[in-house]
Amino acid sequence: MSVGAAGDLGDLGDLARCSLNTATVKRATLREAVDVAARAGLGAVGLWRDRVEEAGTARAAKLVADAGLCVSSLCRGGFLTAAHDDGVAAALDDNRRAIAQAAEVGAPELVFVVGGLPAAGGPEAPVRGDAGPGDRDLVAARARVADRLADLAPFAAEHGVRIALEPLHPLFAADRAVLSTLGQALDLAAPFAPQVVGVVVDTYHVWWDPALEASIARAGAERRLASYQVCDWCLPLAPVALNSRGHLGDGYVDFAAVTRWVARAGYTGAVETEIFNEAVWAADPAVTVATLADRYARLVRPHL
Amino acid sequence: MSVGAAGDLGDLGDLARCSLNTATVKRATLREAVDVAARAGLGAVGLWRDRVEEAGTARAAKLVADAGLCVSSLCRGGFLTAAHDDGVAAALDDNRRAIAQAAEVGAPELVFVVGGLPAAGGPEAPVRGDAGPGDRDLVAARARVADRLADLAPFAAEHGVRIALEPLHPLFAADRAVLSTLGQALDLAAPFAPQVVGVVVDTYHVWWDPALEASIARAGAERRLASYQVCDWCLPLAPVALNSRGHLGDGYVDFAAVTRWVARAGYTGAVETEIFNEAVWAADPAVTVATLADRYARLVRPHL
Repeated sequence: MSVGAAGDLGDLGDLARCSLNTATVKRATLREAVDVAARAGLGAVGLWRDRVEEAGTARAAKLVADAGLCVSSLCRGGFLTAAHDDGVAAALDDNRRAIAQAAEVGAPELVFVVGGLPAAGGPEAPVRGDAGPGDRDLVAARARVADRLADLAPFAAEHGVRIALEPLHPLFAADRAVLSTLGQALDLAAPFAPQVVGVVVDTYHVWWDPALEASIARAGAERRLASYQVCDWCLPLAPVALNSRGHLGDGYVDFAAVTRWVARAGYTGAVETEIFNEAVWAADPAVTVATLADRYARLVRPHL
Repeated sequence: MSVGAAGDLGDLGDLARCSLNTATVKRATLREAVDVAARAGLGAVGLWRDRVEEAGTARAAKLVADAGLCVSSLCRGGFLTAAHDDGVAAALDDNRRAIAQAAEVGAPELVFVVGGLPAAGGPEAPVRGDAGPGDRDLVAARARVADRLADLAPFAAEHGVRIALEPLHPLFAADRAVLSTLGQALDLAAPFAPQVVGVVVDTYHVWWDPALEASIARAGAERRLASYQVCDWCLPLAPVALNSRGHLGDGYVDFAAVTRWVARAGYTGAVETEIFNEAVWAADPAVTVATLADRYARLVRPHL
């Protein structure tokens, strides 16, 4: 990287579209994250609900606005694959809360991670392989996601919040998201107005997809391209696979190509760096933000 | 599992289509693998080139035939993504040898794993994240695979061997196979006659694909369904991700659904169990084969 001392950005030029997802500086409070983003000259932050709830929604909104930043997205709703009534009701309740929070905090987009097979027991539960046959029915789990979207879309529309469906890497199809490709996300979104249900392009999750260029173009044509999140695909995988995401340039993603496709699709929004990585979490947030701003300026912005 | 003592299969019925891929009993010699498969009543074995070369091709063919078994496939050729002349020439040489071996050993199908990004340095090399920009060009790497297929297809046709393109899970897109979906495999195969280039359905690699049912049907309609390999997707991933494959029923794959789709596509060939897993490799090969035969009889055969 070309940055010097912690937080010394030199002249990286216009960072108005560069957004810090707060999960990238997981151990910072919301105030610390907002401060470090603003000092680095970034234009936006992507918020996680845990940090928003800690601060209180109204105070979180004020913190961000007072720092001169926009909210590029709120992470996250979803986890819609429950097969039984109790789980369905709990998911709907939680997502209505998330939609209301997004509206209150001024997040135009609420990112949805749709959930894995019921056998996998949700995002934080240990996975297990002794599921019953029904728990392995991927087709049915995907159909339930469509049903829950139909339940939630009117509520989102009333609140002026767009549900942004995030396809996750197929690595996570069992335990985290049965939504695995951008094309599938667009198919799921199709019954709804584009201002109500959009899609996320997260490079970590979709970089490998042979249909990616075509699906991004389709997302643009259908006016559903709601968020562009970036980080790199690094190997070997971390012991917790989800935490293998790295700074741009540290892995295998062709950011020039994907960014050109996103720009060509008419996307004019923020580019949110969202990294889950123990080493990044252990770093000084100012150094992390300096690095991500530098990588954005070199690897993304020239292609926007 | 419902088997009793090592190798005690009880009455599992017709195992004629059940095939043992020799990688599942990695530490057995070819003779040991063939013996254990034959004693269990299996109809076929899928061979790896290392075991064939150890035994000698002619002797390997005789070993299998004398045991009353068929060869369901030879693993593997491929690794076609080299960008420079030397690498291209080496890949073509090695694949011509593999095609000749497949013909000599009586394998109707030669499985191709197409290779990863050049930055990843091939299947056995450590991966690295400091690749130059060209090394990350996935679109170009995929185009080189198509070019190498065009180089090799006439040679395969002359030898009466079908190249069976195996899409690998997107988890391996960087370091092992830029061929990531069955649909992409069918697109790659399209310029060639179906008896020259076919496709492999390996449940571990494709179970997550929202287009799987449609792509399997397409493979059938295009007469390209060359091999059906089975094993389960288990979590958490093993320290070496490739070795996370498990016995059927130990993970998340819906074998009933995928097997029905394969049968409906007109597939009448062998069902090859191919497991990479340190615990399975450490087990007595007779126990491993008893388990895989039991799982085949319960989870696959009823749906064929």
